[in-house]
Amino acid sequence: MTTITNKEADIIRKVAGNFARHPSQVNQLMEADAEIIQRNGEYLVLKTDGIHEEIKTKLYEDPYLIGWMAVTAPISDIAAVGAVPEGILLSLQLPLDGNDDWLKNMQAGIGDACLRYNSYVLGGDTNFSDSVSISTTVVAHIRSGSPLLRTGMKPGECLYTTSLLGTGNAFAYSRFFNQALEVRFHPVARLTESKTIRTYATACIDTSDGLFPALAVLSELNGVGFHLETPLIKLLSEEARSIHHHDGLPEWMLLAGPHGEYELLFTVPYEKQNDFEKECESEGWKPVYLGKVTATPQIDFVSGSLPIRCDSHRVANLFYESNGDILAYLQLLKQQHESWVSNN
Amino acid sequence: MTTITNKEADIIRKVAGNFARHPSQVNQLMEADAEIIQRNGEYLVLKTDGIHEEIKTKLYEDPYLIGWMAVTAPISDIAAVGAVPEGILLSLQLPLDGNDDWLKNMQAGIGDACLRYNSYVLGGDTNFSDSVSISTTVVAHIRSGSPLLRTGMKPGECLYTTSLLGTGNAFAYSRFFNQALEVRFHPVARLTESKTIRTYATACIDTSDGLFPALAVLSELNGVGFHLETPLIKLLSEEARSIHHHDGLPEWMLLAGPHGEYELLFTVPYEKQNDFEKECESEGWKPVYLGKVTATPQIDFVSGSLPIRCDSHRVANLFYESNGDILAYLQLLKQQHESWVSNN
Repeated sequence: MTTITNKEADIIRKVAGNFARHPSQVNQLMEADAEIIQRNGEYLVLKTDGIHEEIKTKLYEDPYLIGWMAVTAPISDIAAVGAVPEGILLSLQLPLDGNDDWLKNMQAGIGDACLRYNSYVLGGDTNFSDSVSISTTVVAHIRSGSPLLRTGMKPGECLYTTSLLGTGNAFAYSRFFNQALEVRFHPVARLTESKTIRTYATACIDTSDGLFPALAVLSELNGVGFHLETPLIKLLSEEARSIHHHDGLPEWMLLAGPHGEYELLFTVPYEKQNDFEKECESEGWKPVYLGKVTATPQIDFVSGSLPIRCDSHRVANLFYESNGDILAYLQLLKQQHESWVSNN
Repeated sequence: MTTITNKEADIIRKVAGNFARHPSQVNQLMEADAEIIQRNGEYLVLKTDGIHEEIKTKLYEDPYLIGWMAVTAPISDIAAVGAVPEGILLSLQLPLDGNDDWLKNMQAGIGDACLRYNSYVLGGDTNFSDSVSISTTVVAHIRSGSPLLRTGMKPGECLYTTSLLGTGNAFAYSRFFNQALEVRFHPVARLTESKTIRTYATACIDTSDGLFPALAVLSELNGVGFHLETPLIKLLSEEARSIHHHDGLPEWMLLAGPHGEYELLFTVPYEKQNDFEKECESEGWKPVYLGKVTATPQIDFVSGSLPIRCDSHRVANLFYESNGDILAYLQLLKQQHESWVSNN
């Protein structure tokens, strides 16, 4: 998972904060979804991301999905900086007595994702462990133009995503709370859309950790807030809407994270909005308009008939307040909702 | 750990064998210590390696050593192909309740190693797990000349290492069997020596998994064997000799692996031997001469007063025959020794 809340940011700073930076590294710590180095007249882009907690919590059990996501997750970060992936290195931890079918299905997920993203498995390292875990490093490049960072957005700019949201959390909800609701989860890293986005956008992040956590990161890094003019119900994917209708979850909860759908979330200057939307249309896709960047670090949105204004980190931090306990997390979400209802 | 025995090679082929290769990748599967891609008139070199089993078995407990080795292990592979490292990405799994001193010491090991190798932490990914594990990806380059592969050696060529051997296994022996024997273990990736080696050598591998496992890999990949003309006692480092003297371990056992000392093991054509040794001397270091490459896949060596000839994989496979059980492994080593003594 890529994005950070302010609590997660504290941990990242503690673990990573004191090392010297590469003199040609473009991005500061947390300033981009991937690491960007200027060299030989191009940008070399690298990203390490892992599938660990998703396997441990059994959010992912299907080996094909594990393989697919081990490639899609870091390549989504590559898309978020506007780069083109070339290859991956895999660090695998597998059980010594793992069965061959499981391994073959995971390899099929990895292989299909590489094919989809025009990338290759360059190498890797296999170790044996009681539990499965995969860490993937992607190597990518930007030959011309500049990389997209998470920083650079200004109040008044327009906020978009590449598609409707909430599928990641809908999938997690179905896995953890109601397995009778089958939710298809097969995200595709937005490399194609990224080519157009990078010529218009001022900043970009992926929604690997869900919408609200991504907004919290953008808010913190840019010192801004967001006014989501589009009612949240209109931002929900079909899968997320179905959970909303079936189990009555308020719309905002399905965007609260921390399991996202790997769309790109980005800002476009107001005066370029028309040109951008036209170019997307000519390419056969339609970005989803969310609202505007604001000057104060708050988020305004409408969930159901409830208008809500809260601190940018309020929603994202609920997951950390639950210490990752998924039942406690659902309780915290419900308490938060009740508190908003009674204050309205 | 980098090198492979034929049993480990089977596992690697099963896990990695079926993916399409990058069209510009220079090395075949297992043909080099790192992954090499030709691009933009240079070679981009990448390597992922991890510190997992070393932590799980408590071979490494000192957090500084864990940090140092997380960088040194993959950079030793970069040295083995003759490349220059630029930066690393870290994939960390840490306990959620980890203590700050431990983290700081591990970071100091990482930081000092980066400083030593003129490299930078470019980024990474942190996850929380019951046990510590670190996977490191190094990005490196070769601006001119060709990369060194594990393949390319021919019978008659001279076999060298960058220094005396056995410290890795001496350290492991002291940790597992006799903690009263303090063995210093602080390997340094041989980047400096690699610059000269790559202008003379026909093939190279590092001894991250010990001498005999490295020889097994070279034997398999090149269809050759080795005649170690230098008696093994003269190849042992001070630390390994001290274990040999103190606990009576036969010399060959201290070179049997699978925990090596991260020296480079390489071959130089007979006719270039003098020039090579002179150039090393002018640089202030002395390569250790082991013997010659032979045409048959056997290894000849003298351990103590015992002349031994065995299949190239015999020694390396003993560790796999023990299923990684360290006590069973020591028993297998002793049985093998008795069988050689009684057959002599």
